[in-house]
Amino acid sequence: MPELPQPPEPFEPVDVGPWRRRSRRVAYENPWIRIDHDEVVRPDGSPGIYGVIHFSNAAIGVVAVGGDGRILLVGQHRYPLDRYSWELPEGGSPLDEEPEEGARRELAEETGYEAGSIRELFRFSLSNSVSDEIGVIYLATELVEGEAHPEPTEDLTVRWATLDEVLAEIDAGDIHDLMTIAGVSRYAVEARVTR
Amino acid sequence: MPELPQPPEPFEPVDVGPWRRRSRRVAYENPWIRIDHDEVVRPDGSPGIYGVIHFSNAAIGVVAVGGDGRILLVGQHRYPLDRYSWELPEGGSPLDEEPEEGARRELAEETGYEAGSIRELFRFSLSNSVSDEIGVIYLATELVEGEAHPEPTEDLTVRWATLDEVLAEIDAGDIHDLMTIAGVSRYAVEARVTR
Repeated sequence: MPELPQPPEPFEPVDVGPWRRRSRRVAYENPWIRIDHDEVVRPDGSPGIYGVIHFSNAAIGVVAVGGDGRILLVGQHRYPLDRYSWELPEGGSPLDEEPEEGARRELAEETGYEAGSIRELFRFSLSNSVSDEIGVIYLATELVEGEAHPEPTEDLTVRWATLDEVLAEIDAGDIHDLMTIAGVSRYAVEARVTR
Repeated sequence: MPELPQPPEPFEPVDVGPWRRRSRRVAYENPWIRIDHDEVVRPDGSPGIYGVIHFSNAAIGVVAVGGDGRILLVGQHRYPLDRYSWELPEGGSPLDEEPEEGARRELAEETGYEAGSIRELFRFSLSNSVSDEIGVIYLATELVEGEAHPEPTEDLTVRWATLDEVLAEIDAGDIHDLMTIAGVSRYAVEARVTR
């Protein structure tokens, strides 16, 4: 049966910094993202719309460094880009989870390695002009080898690369995932490694 | 009048790497993003859905370095996060535009500075598990001061910061925009600057 038009729900306008949200409706939702379509007043006072992508999970990435200084990379075909991508071990961590737990889990699931030592490198926001996605990059060391258990949606390959190899692949455009570029580059600065 | 149920359009299934797209419908669209809701077969053969965020523009960021080595930052309140954010000069470049043109335009509009010299640092993909957003980070030097012309949606503040200041603000979580973290860190490695 066709869905009947619904009366607008009452909405209390709210200030968002120099913006004002006049209305909000959910335009799309799945287990990973939700699109909120807002009517807004822009900083200059003019009317506008804003489609906000809300993420159910925080993005977690792990710069996992072996005893020889090489870095663990995970390769997979990324469906939205229709392109292969070599990346840090990455995954989603529910917003109510301690992200370090998510980092240890994703590292172990995707690569089989347990982190003997793990610490936060930095927190970040992604595509913040249209989304509220946030995340954390960790540095994992003292790795202990185990067995990988990827999710059924994942068709993964794991390899080791030196820092110089990763930086060269970034420069060549072969490594393009921004979490990977940011995590490895920030780690490279910290490690006082220069090229 | 209520919208009537529509017959499904014929759709030729298509392989996307190890995935298979069985159907696609547009679930949401505005001038900046479109959500395609796909029915898929996952790499392990199980059925699933995929909500893909398509971006109308490439994301452009500019590491603009002054004669004294300081970096230009632009501050604004980011509506989706409801949070203030200090970032590289950034903006969207239509996919059919030469991104360097977009970089020069955004730098000049947001900060007033013209780049005497500009070159690509790296290309990237953002949130590639759910979106097809891509972008380019540029390095601009030999800056010439002019007048800023921000868009009406932008309420911007411009400041200069040393590389050490930016890296410290990243570590403290005060600078969180991932394009900024990646661009500045990659530049820092290239500049052979260590902390």
